Amino acid sequence: MSGIGFEIVARDGAARAGRLRTAHGAVETPAFMPVGTAATVKAMMPDAVAQTGAQILLGNTYHLMLRPGAERIAALGGLHRFMHWPHPILTDSGGFQVMSLAKLRKIGEAGVEFRSHLDGSRHLLTPERSIEVQRLLGADITMALDECMTFPAERAAVEASMKLTLRWAERSRAAFVARWGYGIFGIVQGGVHADLRRDCAERLVEIGFDGYAVGGLAIGEGQETTFAMVEATVPFLPAERPRYLMGVGKPADIVGAVRRGIDLFDCVVPTRSGRTAQAWTRDGPLNMRNACHADDPAPLDPQCGCPACTGFSRAYLHHLVKAGEILGSMLLTQHNLTYYADLMAELRAAIRAGRLADFVLPGDGG
Amino acid sequence: MSGIGFEIVARDGAARAGRLRTAHGAVETPAFMPVGTAATVKAMMPDAVAQTGAQILLGNTYHLMLRPGAERIAALGGLHRFMHWPHPILTDSGGFQVMSLAKLRKIGEAGVEFRSHLDGSRHLLTPERSIEVQRLLGADITMALDECMTFPAERAAVEASMKLTLRWAERSRAAFVARWGYGIFGIVQGGVHADLRRDCAERLVEIGFDGYAVGGLAIGEGQETTFAMVEATVPFLPAERPRYLMGVGKPADIVGAVRRGIDLFDCVVPTRSGRTAQAWTRDGPLNMRNACHADDPAPLDPQCGCPACTGFSRAYLHHLVKAGEILGSMLLTQHNLTYYADLMAELRAAIRAGRLADFVLPGDGG
Repeated sequence: MSGIGFEIVARDGAARAGRLRTAHGAVETPAFMPVGTAATVKAMMPDAVAQTGAQILLGNTYHLMLRPGAERIAALGGLHRFMHWPHPILTDSGGFQVMSLAKLRKIGEAGVEFRSHLDGSRHLLTPERSIEVQRLLGADITMALDECMTFPAERAAVEASMKLTLRWAERSRAAFVARWGYGIFGIVQGGVHADLRRDCAERLVEIGFDGYAVGGLAIGEGQETTFAMVEATVPFLPAERPRYLMGVGKPADIVGAVRRGIDLFDCVVPTRSGRTAQAWTRDGPLNMRNACHADDPAPLDPQCGCPACTGFSRAYLHHLVKAGEILGSMLLTQHNLTYYADLMAELRAAIRAGRLADFVLPGDGG
Repeated sequence: MSGIGFEIVARDGAARAGRLRTAHGAVETPAFMPVGTAATVKAMMPDAVAQTGAQILLGNTYHLMLRPGAERIAALGGLHRFMHWPHPILTDSGGFQVMSLAKLRKIGEAGVEFRSHLDGSRHLLTPERSIEVQRLLGADITMALDECMTFPAERAAVEASMKLTLRWAERSRAAFVARWGYGIFGIVQGGVHADLRRDCAERLVEIGFDGYAVGGLAIGEGQETTFAMVEATVPFLPAERPRYLMGVGKPADIVGAVRRGIDLFDCVVPTRSGRTAQAWTRDGPLNMRNACHADDPAPLDPQCGCPACTGFSRAYLHHLVKAGEILGSMLLTQHNLTYYADLMAELRAAIRAGRLADFVLPGDGG
């Protein structure tokens, strides 16, 4: 197998700037992946997503297997063609959404039995089926199926879950058929227990993956613990392989994780915020529903080059939000994704210049 | 006063191809005006609206005076700057929406007292206030305030209403201050009575306007009657002035009215259809919610050059509609507006070529 390519072009402390090569193009890391749950980044045209600076998207296996169906997407030429996104796509395994969205979940050694939140239909998600779905979608990066615990949980339960995740990782790895430019990542679990994180990481490395994710964090344990778990995991992952902190996060979370050696991120924050009137700016977060913006002719963020900031006033964005206009969601989503892409570009530049220690998040956007 | 410019470049029977000149640029006629109710064409970036081929928008005085307020928009530089649409804008008078949306309406000689449908606040819309609001918005084309009757109505009531509309037209005209490139249109009322339409048109021409609208149609009287009223009105309007059939319509309505000498149209059909899964295509109208599209790799309309047709399959559009994704509204709205703009361009070409008699609406899109 050849898998995906990854080269590190600069280091600054534990942080790295790199280039991830896939069959659908390269991704400069550290990178943020906008979430394209149902084969669309919500409220965004795909060319507008690329215009924000995003180079890779995350697709959700759980949603797509239920609607419109993985076999249907495959028959239509795969997810890239279906959603008109010719750039890289990472798909998750479905494990997280099964636990958070599906009904009547029953976890066993084989996998997770569940009922669809859409129509109540019965499904079985096994490691083998998760890998097959991701193959049908045409993912550039496939994720091994893991079990995602809620927080807090008893240590014994976390340990048992981590061990199940490892057995599923081995089955996921075996089910994955590598082709040029396609890769599979394993997922480190272990809750908030550093020794479990280390055990899990070491065993995953023995199995051997193209990259490694840190999962099961940013679910209520707090930023300090998130960072502690990243620190407990990263030293046991191969330096030459990409590292992905799943579901993270707000800008300050990303900056802290980049400092600790993480290369990839995904989170619904910029897109969901954009649909709920929240803007991330170099002046800090703004609630565009606030009446203080009603007469403000200033742009949302004068340093931002996105269409929302170059074409419109805060007063207009406030008006759109108050009137419930779709264009408000469109413009704020595009702005937030541009803010995130700009942040990642600034972090990459700081690493290349060896100035990451001096990096200050403008507006302390956390 | 100089008002707006209008030149007729070709005639074919009663139909004309022309060029309307305003302070914000020229409009090739016959033209369709997308509706930008709340200072946005719903689900569309303004540059995408222009990309469809639309050259002029309609803004709604009633909505904008209530939210965000005409004085506020004026303080922010006017409607063009506020909504980032540098091209021509026609604003309606507010008369139609007051009758269809406002609460506790009370019509008197002075104007219409009403309560806002948004917050119950009390307002008085007079001809003078309507003209002032449209001036504050910065409309390229201002509409005189008219009373819009519902259909059906007694002839005596229609006649009284038409006479009130004429008195309001005179006051509107007096309140309007012409500046270079700005114009005011009078509105012909008279229900489904040809003699009342003629009386109204003749009196409006005596008052003198930069253009003339035919109002109070397409509200349930049927296409045949709509066309009959256009035929009863057009001969009494000056040939060298633009004619606008308000609130019309579906593609077949537009084709028939162009044949009868109409130059301008507006309607929510293409935009509202786009948000309710309806697509206008050269194969006729399609309901994208229909399961027959679920596996169809074909574009919506292979002859259309819009992003929805060049980038995506019917299967994908169906998926977006089923999943309730905003991108579905965005793509179908952009397609429908492109379909309408293409239709107008084809009608203009047919008039210039003297071939309008042979014009056949593809797919009989009516």
